[in-house]
Amino acid sequence: MPKNALNITREKNFSEWYQEVISRAELADNSVVRGCMVIRPYGYSIWENIRNTLDKQIKNLGVQNAYFPLLIPLEFLEKEAEHIDGFAKECAVVTHHRLKQTDKGLEPDGKLEKPYIIRPTSETIIGESFSNWINSYRDLPMKINQWANVVRWEMRPRLFLRTSEFLWQEGHNVFATQEEAKEDAQKMLNVYKDLMENLLAISGIPGQKTEDEKFPGADSTYTIESMMQDGKALQSCTSHDLGQHFTKASNIKFTDADTKEQFAYSNSWGITTRLIGSLIMSHSDDDGLVLPPYVAPYKVVIIPVIHDESQKSDILKYCQDIKNRIGDNVYIDDSYKKTPDKKWDWVRKGAPIIMEIGKRELEEEKVYYMIRYLGQDGKKSESLNEFVSNYKDLLKSIHNKMLEKNKKHLEQSIKTAETLMEIENIFKKQTCFISIPAKFWNNKHLEDIMEKYKVSYRCYPFDDKERLIIAKSY
Amino acid sequence: MPKNALNITREKNFSEWYQEVISRAELADNSVVRGCMVIRPYGYSIWENIRNTLDKQIKNLGVQNAYFPLLIPLEFLEKEAEHIDGFAKECAVVTHHRLKQTDKGLEPDGKLEKPYIIRPTSETIIGESFSNWINSYRDLPMKINQWANVVRWEMRPRLFLRTSEFLWQEGHNVFATQEEAKEDAQKMLNVYKDLMENLLAISGIPGQKTEDEKFPGADSTYTIESMMQDGKALQSCTSHDLGQHFTKASNIKFTDADTKEQFAYSNSWGITTRLIGSLIMSHSDDDGLVLPPYVAPYKVVIIPVIHDESQKSDILKYCQDIKNRIGDNVYIDDSYKKTPDKKWDWVRKGAPIIMEIGKRELEEEKVYYMIRYLGQDGKKSESLNEFVSNYKDLLKSIHNKMLEKNKKHLEQSIKTAETLMEIENIFKKQTCFISIPAKFWNNKHLEDIMEKYKVSYRCYPFDDKERLIIAKSY
Repeated sequence: MPKNALNITREKNFSEWYQEVISRAELADNSVVRGCMVIRPYGYSIWENIRNTLDKQIKNLGVQNAYFPLLIPLEFLEKEAEHIDGFAKECAVVTHHRLKQTDKGLEPDGKLEKPYIIRPTSETIIGESFSNWINSYRDLPMKINQWANVVRWEMRPRLFLRTSEFLWQEGHNVFATQEEAKEDAQKMLNVYKDLMENLLAISGIPGQKTEDEKFPGADSTYTIESMMQDGKALQSCTSHDLGQHFTKASNIKFTDADTKEQFAYSNSWGITTRLIGSLIMSHSDDDGLVLPPYVAPYKVVIIPVIHDESQKSDILKYCQDIKNRIGDNVYIDDSYKKTPDKKWDWVRKGAPIIMEIGKRELEEEKVYYMIRYLGQDGKKSESLNEFVSNYKDLLKSIHNKMLEKNKKHLEQSIKTAETLMEIENIFKKQTCFISIPAKFWNNKHLEDIMEKYKVSYRCYPFDDKERLIIAKSY
Repeated sequence: MPKNALNITREKNFSEWYQEVISRAELADNSVVRGCMVIRPYGYSIWENIRNTLDKQIKNLGVQNAYFPLLIPLEFLEKEAEHIDGFAKECAVVTHHRLKQTDKGLEPDGKLEKPYIIRPTSETIIGESFSNWINSYRDLPMKINQWANVVRWEMRPRLFLRTSEFLWQEGHNVFATQEEAKEDAQKMLNVYKDLMENLLAISGIPGQKTEDEKFPGADSTYTIESMMQDGKALQSCTSHDLGQHFTKASNIKFTDADTKEQFAYSNSWGITTRLIGSLIMSHSDDDGLVLPPYVAPYKVVIIPVIHDESQKSDILKYCQDIKNRIGDNVYIDDSYKKTPDKKWDWVRKGAPIIMEIGKRELEEEKVYYMIRYLGQDGKKSESLNEFVSNYKDLLKSIHNKMLEKNKKHLEQSIKTAETLMEIENIFKKQTCFISIPAKFWNNKHLEDIMEKYKVSYRCYPFDDKERLIIAKSY
């Protein structure tokens, strides 16, 4: 049996395995700041790829980026009642504006008349600007996005999945009519669906959240629920139809074509660094991270294999030739490490294509490579010409097969149950999604079972609103 | 005399003029949060252009982006003595992690055992990671950059120039030797010089800060001091040679080739949204913002001029043809507004080339345009073919002329003085830079004069270290 590149397998302990994938791929570290993480360059580069891809897509839809204050006055949070309940219990509060030296060290000084919270989300502070910027129906729709950090105090932190500070984008669109705001919220969810499928090779179930699971202050929340390899659900993105909750709270009015003043309608939509957690748990294996090609920091990593110093410069030159012919996002690892160590490093870092280029490849103008997601079965030798001419198709095929595999896993792990007994019997045996009749929602007996198995409502799937998906979740 | 597009001229009140340029160009708003600003889409788009350009340049130099916590433990600030003095008086302090409802409304709850400050800069928190990541000389140099928000509590806020929260990048490079760290700090200043000249068309005096003006905890601070149109200096960027101050404070050690353990050397370098303030005050005129082409959100704005509705679709189609032939960053303003209003809007927003396209242009396949920085003198009509074939040269020439003008203004406004009396005589008459003998530094009589005229030390210019530049500053 081949030895794995990690110490822990998914089978043995999924949660510890997740931790090890992250640390060995150098994606992120736990920080000394409680609940916060340090996103390391390799992990941040994945976030940059997600951000740049999405940013282009939303700009094509007429969304403009802007930046709003990090600090939010308490009275803003008070504007929307459900909003307070949702965020008051987990927010960082700024109470002083300087420090002073005392016998016991530095202490807070300069108490603020009114404290601020660090934004957990920005509906209210952006609403304040909207109320100034929007006057006439001609100003609508207004579509604004912010790439930012937010803080929601986290008692049980977990790298990428739950951190007190995380990075995200929050889109805030305002419309003249309810229909437009609602339709647009669904459209933005579809943008996320494309991003997940086409960049991250992750599928999911698009649907609507139940009353108790929706965003504090929303009319409806839409979600995509993805399935991790352990059968648990992860909410990969959300889009909220906010109706007039926040436009009324922030006094966002416009004069319509008949010169009548009306409150506008809004929505908001976001993805976070959590998506990297989803990426990790969707594809990685017992050898470490596995990245689909389009989101990988390097699509191809070339390892020069040098046994004889006299050939070093020729082999390195050949590696450079290969890189030049393939194009962007190719990395030549000419570090001091030993070849097998390099190879296993890049296996653990999930580079989609890992090449080893030595004397034979040089002499025969060939490339020897491993397709990471296929593991030991994915090794191949072929002429450089052949590789280069098939390269784009190869990336596409890797991506498609990873997405297919992910979809298949999801489909095979959605069970159907029509009675409470069926539900309990399934959860007794496995961790999976169960599709149950939508009318079961809020049933006391169901919720007892759900509590017993630590299961929550995930969504009413768009493709069958008579059903409700329940599952354990991250 | 032609009427100006703003209510206030530079001559009349430079400070109010600055404010009006920003508000009429819709770059930023003052926020309800004290000292903080809202960066509006048009202003943010300028920041995105600065960011994307610099980001590419530093990545080419081997710098990698990463992300570190927003919150910094107090004891981290205490690690470097000068650092405390520099930032303790202006930092936002987080003392609680939730809110509770009381009779008087929401109040802070869940007091933290140890408070955090919101990062005013990240040397100490990044140093903590470096101490984990750096072990051997093989790990060096390590070059890390962060694009982030920071908070330094500001008592006299001013849009872009001084805000309690601002956006920036902070680069942190670590080396095995003092020479490398110092040389690299100067190299990064040169990267900024290129950025300022080639993107923003702003020149400046590169030099070294005096002892009292350097970064808290630095061996040396390098700066580029630009001259605003009112003769005041603005520090456009800084790069700090930190020696071993922070590597010792954060215990950043490495094992050298002889297996001896040593402290590393580091530097840090940053630009902020302040650069947009510099951009505004360097080029704008009494009609509003003037943008050099490469940093402008739209290089060309096309205004369709429609007198007869029957020609509307043909004119709009012609505008689209022009846009397609010119390429990226062209905007067709087909909003509901009247033509003259649109024209003045884009004058105030500083679009480098503003076209008016009507019946005559359509029929003769011409374009009629105004070069913004030339004002009323910059109007021209020519064939579309001619315009398209000269377009790249035109952008280049606009850029070069704006940079030249800025350089000339700087050169003409640097006065030289060899005695205290000469210095006072110059400041009596005008606001400008004065080059004085470097040995005057710290002279009590000089500092009396400087205090009287609200002047500060700016830098020892690299090209003549025997001199010292003093000026009023932002």
